[in-house]
Amino acid sequence: MAVIHPRIKRSLAVSAPVVRILAVLLGVLAILMIVPLGVLTLEGDPDRMAFLLSIAVVAGSACLMWFVTHGVEILLRPRQMFILTTLSWVLVSSYASLPLILGAPQLSFTDAVFESISAITTTGSTVLVGIDGLSDGLKLWRGLMQWLGGIGIIVMAIAILPFLKVGGMRLFQTESSDWSDKVLPRAGGIAKASGAIYLAGTLMAMLTYWLAGMTPLDAVVHAMSSMATGGFANSDASFGVYHDRPLILWLASFFMLCGALPFVLFIRALRDTPQVLWRDQQVRGLLWLLSVVILGLTVYRVAGGASFFEALTQVAFNVISVVTTTGYASDDYTQWGPLVVAAFFYLTFVGGCSGSTSGGMKIFRFQIGAIMLFTQLRHLVHAQGVFAQRYNGNPLSDEVVRGVIAFSFFFFLTIAGLALGLALLGLDLVTALSGAATAVSNVGPGLGPIIGPAGNFSSLPDAAKWLLSLGMLMGRLEILTVLVLLTPTFWRK
Amino acid sequence: MAVIHPRIKRSLAVSAPVVRILAVLLGVLAILMIVPLGVLTLEGDPDRMAFLLSIAVVAGSACLMWFVTHGVEILLRPRQMFILTTLSWVLVSSYASLPLILGAPQLSFTDAVFESISAITTTGSTVLVGIDGLSDGLKLWRGLMQWLGGIGIIVMAIAILPFLKVGGMRLFQTESSDWSDKVLPRAGGIAKASGAIYLAGTLMAMLTYWLAGMTPLDAVVHAMSSMATGGFANSDASFGVYHDRPLILWLASFFMLCGALPFVLFIRALRDTPQVLWRDQQVRGLLWLLSVVILGLTVYRVAGGASFFEALTQVAFNVISVVTTTGYASDDYTQWGPLVVAAFFYLTFVGGCSGSTSGGMKIFRFQIGAIMLFTQLRHLVHAQGVFAQRYNGNPLSDEVVRGVIAFSFFFFLTIAGLALGLALLGLDLVTALSGAATAVSNVGPGLGPIIGPAGNFSSLPDAAKWLLSLGMLMGRLEILTVLVLLTPTFWRK
Repeated sequence: MAVIHPRIKRSLAVSAPVVRILAVLLGVLAILMIVPLGVLTLEGDPDRMAFLLSIAVVAGSACLMWFVTHGVEILLRPRQMFILTTLSWVLVSSYASLPLILGAPQLSFTDAVFESISAITTTGSTVLVGIDGLSDGLKLWRGLMQWLGGIGIIVMAIAILPFLKVGGMRLFQTESSDWSDKVLPRAGGIAKASGAIYLAGTLMAMLTYWLAGMTPLDAVVHAMSSMATGGFANSDASFGVYHDRPLILWLASFFMLCGALPFVLFIRALRDTPQVLWRDQQVRGLLWLLSVVILGLTVYRVAGGASFFEALTQVAFNVISVVTTTGYASDDYTQWGPLVVAAFFYLTFVGGCSGSTSGGMKIFRFQIGAIMLFTQLRHLVHAQGVFAQRYNGNPLSDEVVRGVIAFSFFFFLTIAGLALGLALLGLDLVTALSGAATAVSNVGPGLGPIIGPAGNFSSLPDAAKWLLSLGMLMGRLEILTVLVLLTPTFWRK
Repeated sequence: MAVIHPRIKRSLAVSAPVVRILAVLLGVLAILMIVPLGVLTLEGDPDRMAFLLSIAVVAGSACLMWFVTHGVEILLRPRQMFILTTLSWVLVSSYASLPLILGAPQLSFTDAVFESISAITTTGSTVLVGIDGLSDGLKLWRGLMQWLGGIGIIVMAIAILPFLKVGGMRLFQTESSDWSDKVLPRAGGIAKASGAIYLAGTLMAMLTYWLAGMTPLDAVVHAMSSMATGGFANSDASFGVYHDRPLILWLASFFMLCGALPFVLFIRALRDTPQVLWRDQQVRGLLWLLSVVILGLTVYRVAGGASFFEALTQVAFNVISVVTTTGYASDDYTQWGPLVVAAFFYLTFVGGCSGSTSGGMKIFRFQIGAIMLFTQLRHLVHAQGVFAQRYNGNPLSDEVVRGVIAFSFFFFLTIAGLALGLALLGLDLVTALSGAATAVSNVGPGLGPIIGPAGNFSSLPDAAKWLLSLGMLMGRLEILTVLVLLTPTFWRK
């Protein structure tokens, strides 16, 4: 046996459990690919070869990684978890893009990776033109990727991020510690229950979409991308094909909203009482914000001549779509007037609740920021005053507030940096700013004629697509998870 | 004697010293108005009547307020200082607008107040078209208003804001306490010394501008608006008239930069050694930022086909103009390409140093924010680590960091809120966002065809002008000074 340098030996020991977990994830990906393969085979579509080949590559990689790390104990320290988290999203997205390269749309490497990162981060920006004409298998695959990304982020938020002190989930864990200790002792239990609810919600969405008039395939794909707050649709016109089907728009609004609520609350609502949902400060904040914005913009639209119910339906659907970071569009809302454009620009940053499938800043950060600001203002008047800060019934520690503030700064800095890069590549200010924001918030459409709700990302230069892919990944991983990998401190012994 | 209700009596006692100080400020304003009056009289211009009438009104108001508060002791508590600060800027701006209404341009009330608030907050946005053809007296008055605003903000930052714990000056006071205690014991002493330096700088600018080829009137007005980082020029084309006079552009760059440095440092530089300027972390940060941005954009321009020295001159002048929040333009830089538009959008927020005449976020806030963010990142890796935060050689207290963070949030929220209001009034996203930012940062020009460096604010609806006026005042008064007046806590006994 050759002598291995101790440094390399240590590196191997550190990376082995990471590789083993990645093997499992790729295995899941390979299994999911069987679904479109099956559909394409049933339909006799020649594109099934693309999926067959992809499965071979993905499953082969998974097996190789699994056997190479045979006997390795899965015990991760925080640093390994940071690396695993970022690596898993990059790797799964890359492998998931294979059918897009090998099969019918035959995308370039850049386009395929952009599309699959957009899918798996549940962003929903697309570089595809002619989606209506894609094979059923490919439509299904786009939906499945989003669905996988949706459950991925929930599991990550429950099982991984709290250990890394990223994403603010600790804030909500404390609050629910009284029940989680007794009934579902391990994070794994909560993750499984969340997964079951996610699956049930998706099935419910499929059924109701189908009953409301969608084709079975559309119902399946849209159900998956609704619950994942992903936003991929089966048409270049997104939900514009249902523009005059208010029932479908309201149903989709409901399921997008479900995807943007904290999944741990669903567990409690089912176990105890549905009232826990309304008692939660974050959920109340989200519903309050949505009500105010939808009402305000509806009034603005009605004042501009639209009929009330039509305005309410369109405004509610598109506002909920953006705030939940889904990104469907039933209309080109950028034509509704300058106030609406500004409002949707701001809404791009908001996001849903922590512990949901949606991205963005998330409601609790705005609430904690507001608490901090009010306290500061009162300090100006009463310098000696002591003001207890509470959130959701619990005292707010300085540590949590600091974390929220740091995240907010990093979030906006990431968007500003990305936008500058996009401007350097020649994109105008509105496209660059809204593109960066929609990527980091995992929303989907931007603003302006190119990437607005009536456009898509196909015409952007390749470098811009890579920048946006980076933005989508950073946003999905709560930014700090990725940034920390770039600090020298992280790599020091 | 009638019996006065005790509540009214108390209100009067609280407001009397405020009124008495306002009387002094109006007195100064009336005296300043004598300058344009003198010039117009010498030139036999009929517009002198407007100034004569304005002086009568301003001096009359001042005398009335002075005699009504006869014998009142000037002793202010923080709450009175908050009220005085906001009220003094509103009142002086309103009275200063009189000649613009009564005389030649005969502006509407809205336009006149916008113009004088823009002047006195040293913003430099203008609603005037045909500035080249204004009377000499009026050109002089626009310069004088800016000059008054410049010294006003320095005095305020030294003598008032530290007591209100607003504006971050405490941070720099601690640092300089060793010398201020001995040599210039009172804030009044520092304020006077700063005033002398401000005057000397203005005179130097006048002389060099004149030697470099400006007419005497242009030299005087531009000297005042350079040192005040105000930005009013004597032409609709701003400094475009000097587009091909690199000497003038470099001179102006130098004096704008002087206006954006901390004036207390000038005192120390003169007393001790000029090296204190380079040793200061904030000054180094400003110079470093300017160097990087100017170099970067110059390379971008040269890559686009411009000659090096021409590109360097135009880039340096316009970047320094925006970062120091002056707002002169020697060219329509929005035609230089999308990267430049995005860069100038960001630069609008930056601002110069604390304790200077410039507005914006100010360099030290970015530096303290960066220190905070790095500390947070290191905490993610080493949860147990204790990281000492230092700024400018001194330990950074949590209180200072909290203040900086709260300011940053309020700053961006104010801009976001204003922009939403402007969008509601029908302005497009770029005009609304850049207009709100340029107002709150006291820069001057925005972006886009309407309010960009080649445009002006004349065509905006009246309501937009009032919103922007509010933004300019809030920005100039470090936002919290105004916001605190809106909290119920402030008005409670």
